[in-house]
Amino acid sequence: MKLVCSKPQLIDVINTVQRAIAPKTALPILECIKIDANGDGNVVFTGNNIDICIEYNTKCTVTEGGTIAIASKMFGEIVRRLPEGDVTISVNPSNFITKIKSGSSEFNIQGIAPDEFPDAPILDEKFRFTLNEGSLKKLIRKTISFVAQNEGKKPVLTGALFEIKDNSLNVVASDGHRLAVVKEEIKETVNNYKFVVPGMTLRELIKILKDEEDSVNIIVSDRTVLFDFGYYQVYSRLLDGEFLKYDAIISAVNTINVVAEKRYIMDSLERAQLLINDDISAKSENKVPVRFNIAYDKIDVSCITGKGQVNDTVPVELDGGELIIGFNCRFLLDALSACDEEQVKMEFSAPTSGCFIRSVNNDDSYIYMILPVRLYN
Amino acid sequence: MKLVCSKPQLIDVINTVQRAIAPKTALPILECIKIDANGDGNVVFTGNNIDICIEYNTKCTVTEGGTIAIASKMFGEIVRRLPEGDVTISVNPSNFITKIKSGSSEFNIQGIAPDEFPDAPILDEKFRFTLNEGSLKKLIRKTISFVAQNEGKKPVLTGALFEIKDNSLNVVASDGHRLAVVKEEIKETVNNYKFVVPGMTLRELIKILKDEEDSVNIIVSDRTVLFDFGYYQVYSRLLDGEFLKYDAIISAVNTINVVAEKRYIMDSLERAQLLINDDISAKSENKVPVRFNIAYDKIDVSCITGKGQVNDTVPVELDGGELIIGFNCRFLLDALSACDEEQVKMEFSAPTSGCFIRSVNNDDSYIYMILPVRLYN
Repeated sequence: MKLVCSKPQLIDVINTVQRAIAPKTALPILECIKIDANGDGNVVFTGNNIDICIEYNTKCTVTEGGTIAIASKMFGEIVRRLPEGDVTISVNPSNFITKIKSGSSEFNIQGIAPDEFPDAPILDEKFRFTLNEGSLKKLIRKTISFVAQNEGKKPVLTGALFEIKDNSLNVVASDGHRLAVVKEEIKETVNNYKFVVPGMTLRELIKILKDEEDSVNIIVSDRTVLFDFGYYQVYSRLLDGEFLKYDAIISAVNTINVVAEKRYIMDSLERAQLLINDDISAKSENKVPVRFNIAYDKIDVSCITGKGQVNDTVPVELDGGELIIGFNCRFLLDALSACDEEQVKMEFSAPTSGCFIRSVNNDDSYIYMILPVRLYN
Repeated sequence: MKLVCSKPQLIDVINTVQRAIAPKTALPILECIKIDANGDGNVVFTGNNIDICIEYNTKCTVTEGGTIAIASKMFGEIVRRLPEGDVTISVNPSNFITKIKSGSSEFNIQGIAPDEFPDAPILDEKFRFTLNEGSLKKLIRKTISFVAQNEGKKPVLTGALFEIKDNSLNVVASDGHRLAVVKEEIKETVNNYKFVVPGMTLRELIKILKDEEDSVNIIVSDRTVLFDFGYYQVYSRLLDGEFLKYDAIISAVNTINVVAEKRYIMDSLERAQLLINDDISAKSENKVPVRFNIAYDKIDVSCITGKGQVNDTVPVELDGGELIIGFNCRFLLDALSACDEEQVKMEFSAPTSGCFIRSVNNDDSYIYMILPVRLYN
């Protein structure tokens, strides 16, 4: 194999494909990037850690076709350090030694026979729809912190539900203590369908998605989803299992409605978080809650931990009665920081009912629900 | 105690004093910042980890004098998170509960009785001279990477020698494998004198020094040095022991003189470093050397490790014969990155003699010497 490719082009390829490559695995081949060059100048770079597979198609000057797998981290570091200009990659087919050369700099590193490299999933298409890249990025950004980190009781909650219903896409995430539902219209006419994408895939995807209008084709089979960006494809396995029934949860009617400046309420929560972080008097999985005392035209935000005590007052517009209620401070911060507007609407009804956060425009573009935590004082 | 201070002023104080506060120690009092307010509005903030002590003097509105010690990290985090404006600090003298308040935000944290807080060192002045702050910063920046990190055979090498000789200050650092000598003229007339400042002090000092013309008075006693910046003072213990005799080393005459673009030679060394980092075929304390093949008008830089092989060619101006010589790649990079000019002069004489790096202006403002490493191939 011998090909020539510009350094910026190669860096773009590596930054994308590397998202599907495990940093450390038991199988060295899964830490590799596979390069597959044919005589027509079409080159496919692939990363595949079994859970996610990314294929990047690009044009290079190929003087000799062939295939090689090389350690991805090393390859990326080398290419980034090379002098600016065209990079020549050539492989000795007898021993897989790979030469990477630019200007007067030349590296020789050991490649691996590509035979062991896993194949990209085969897709038996059941459903497809189209989103623009910026919308997909926004949907993931606004839900990702709600996806459960650990398998816990319901492994399916380590993913986000993509539910197409009445020509809208709802992306839904929950870890059992909180729920996010974010909605986007689909421009073409599509049937109802649903599937659950692993959080791991979404966390990698958001790192490569751009805020652009380009179309992304999303093609779903029983076990696999493909996000097709044209010049690169991201395959991911899907999660099995029945997701939460979220309709009933988000249709609750609340009696206490608050409109607050997002920045003020986040500032006061971040102050409380200072006393909650590393609080040795609480078990880490059982953080001291932050206390909201909601009364006419303000919320008193307070917290007492082993580190000290904080009191803060946030002016709000209040419609409804008074309430004292406790929350996991981090969960409120996650939800508020996923809101893009300067003001947010927070709805409550009772000390044992969740806090609903939604747009002040009263549309249903997003709804966050956070369950309360019992206060003992 | 009760005082009022602006938030930016308080942040500046904390950022400075915190450099003398141990992040985690067995004695909680050493993790504290001491605040000492008198009725005239003079407030002294002190950090003291026994090795270094920083006192910061500032004016506040003091309505009640007093003294308190509070956990410094916590105090800093709280002040940074407070709303902009004036910060009120008040202490309940019966239980040391300290209230920190700004706008509608109020923290109450547990302070500590200041009795246990260590006193600042008492200085029995033996010698003093003056530098400007920017020069002191430059002297430390250009020598700090040469100071030994571990006590090893000569504990005194974990510090830098400050030697005043013929009205010049030489700052000298060495870890036994390499040597830095950086020179600065002293404007006033002073006697000869020398002392060794711990590397730990210099590493903290460089974080607070500014590139300014302000004078710093440096006052030395037998066991302590004081860097006096006017509004704040940094005390440090000194190191005992006889430093290296460096005069003979730096007066060596070299026969092979190279002038190189600093950027080119650093780029090629950084490429070699990629293969040296995490090289599992070498013990970490015994890195594979980088090989210089110096011949007419170029240096071939190469390296072979368990990760692969790199070859690079750097064009240079050469005066003298040819040479093949090996070095610790990181040591060369440290020295070159401490040079401020775009070109550097590198001098060699034999495979067993050091590489000398100095200014292309041929002045003796700085000299770096790096001992070679034997090449086995």
